[in-house]
Amino acid sequence: MARVSQEHLDARRRQILDGATRCFSRNGFHTASMQDVLREVGLSAGAVYRYFTSKDELIAAIATEALAAVRAAFERAAEEHPPPLPDVLLTQTLGNVLAGGVLGSGGPGTGDEPEFPRVALQVWAETLRNPELAKALRQGFDEMHGAWSKIVAGYQEAGLMRADVPADRVARTLVALAQGFIAQQALFGDVEVEQLRDGLRGLMSMTGPRAG
Amino acid sequence: MARVSQEHLDARRRQILDGATRCFSRNGFHTASMQDVLREVGLSAGAVYRYFTSKDELIAAIATEALAAVRAAFERAAEEHPPPLPDVLLTQTLGNVLAGGVLGSGGPGTGDEPEFPRVALQVWAETLRNPELAKALRQGFDEMHGAWSKIVAGYQEAGLMRADVPADRVARTLVALAQGFIAQQALFGDVEVEQLRDGLRGLMSMTGPRAG
Repeated sequence: MARVSQEHLDARRRQILDGATRCFSRNGFHTASMQDVLREVGLSAGAVYRYFTSKDELIAAIATEALAAVRAAFERAAEEHPPPLPDVLLTQTLGNVLAGGVLGSGGPGTGDEPEFPRVALQVWAETLRNPELAKALRQGFDEMHGAWSKIVAGYQEAGLMRADVPADRVARTLVALAQGFIAQQALFGDVEVEQLRDGLRGLMSMTGPRAG
Repeated sequence: MARVSQEHLDARRRQILDGATRCFSRNGFHTASMQDVLREVGLSAGAVYRYFTSKDELIAAIATEALAAVRAAFERAAEEHPPPLPDVLLTQTLGNVLAGGVLGSGGPGTGDEPEFPRVALQVWAETLRNPELAKALRQGFDEMHGAWSKIVAGYQEAGLMRADVPADRVARTLVALAQGFIAQQALFGDVEVEQLRDGLRGLMSMTGPRAG
């Protein structure tokens, strides 16, 4: 057997995942066949099956990579001490994810369909029938939720936010905001992080009486 | 041909849509076959095909009905003058949708898997390859977005929110919050509207310096 370098193996794996992502983003996970993936990747079945033996394995790898990228984007945005307020931190994170070439070439400014949000929707829908994928997503959510909870507690300690609301609920709400933004990007394509940032700023400025 | 009452026709249609919703919620739209739907509905193929000739028609009808239900839930919650603040209005709307038996019996407290959020995710993913469904969803989003924009402008006129942020961006952000909550319900199932309400309250109380 010919010896191949780790670099070569990694590049092949990258090539396959990028092609599969384009394919799933365009056609949907269920509509795309392995044949479609092979055509998009431009490799033989033998070459691809060496890395991934099914669509399920491909989508699991894509989801894992996307979760790691979201986490890294968040950590990069949260490096400042004290961390920026939610309007800035959330939009920097999402901006990093969308612009950073996570999951192929998509994202604002490239002229392509945004691949990350479209594949994220596919992954979400797929978790309903795939327990392993559901578990991976749950873990990713828990990590993001935990990281945001610490930051929210920091806002409260600094007197920047009322302290009588559990930090983990605010954290969950911020993650929901990110998820909703991703859904809108996938569904409508015409939303930019600045819109979310400004919208959140509006909400953060509310000081009226509280009903209910 | 036997004459049947409109009431009977409506009840049959309801029976089919409820069964299909349960089926899609459990198995996913693509994994479920028309045979699965027939079994769940408990009617013959002939009886069902009189109303819907394909899974695509079924999911379009389910999506249209869900959008109408969300709209009605929002209008019910927004009836007060002046309308409640976002934390109350958003959670009342979502509470109405989830508790109101929209799309079958699911939702908190029934012990079932929540059907509405699970089917919503399926519909979202499906729009990526179904232009008609995408159009219907876009229209539903535009309506919700327009209604929220008016309410946000009202907050601003009443001095409850800073007025230098475009109302339509805040509206979009609130719709994103609802979408993210629906995604979390479908994905993790353990989130209640009170968590969103409290989280939004925390965000609404922020008054610190603005970076960026």
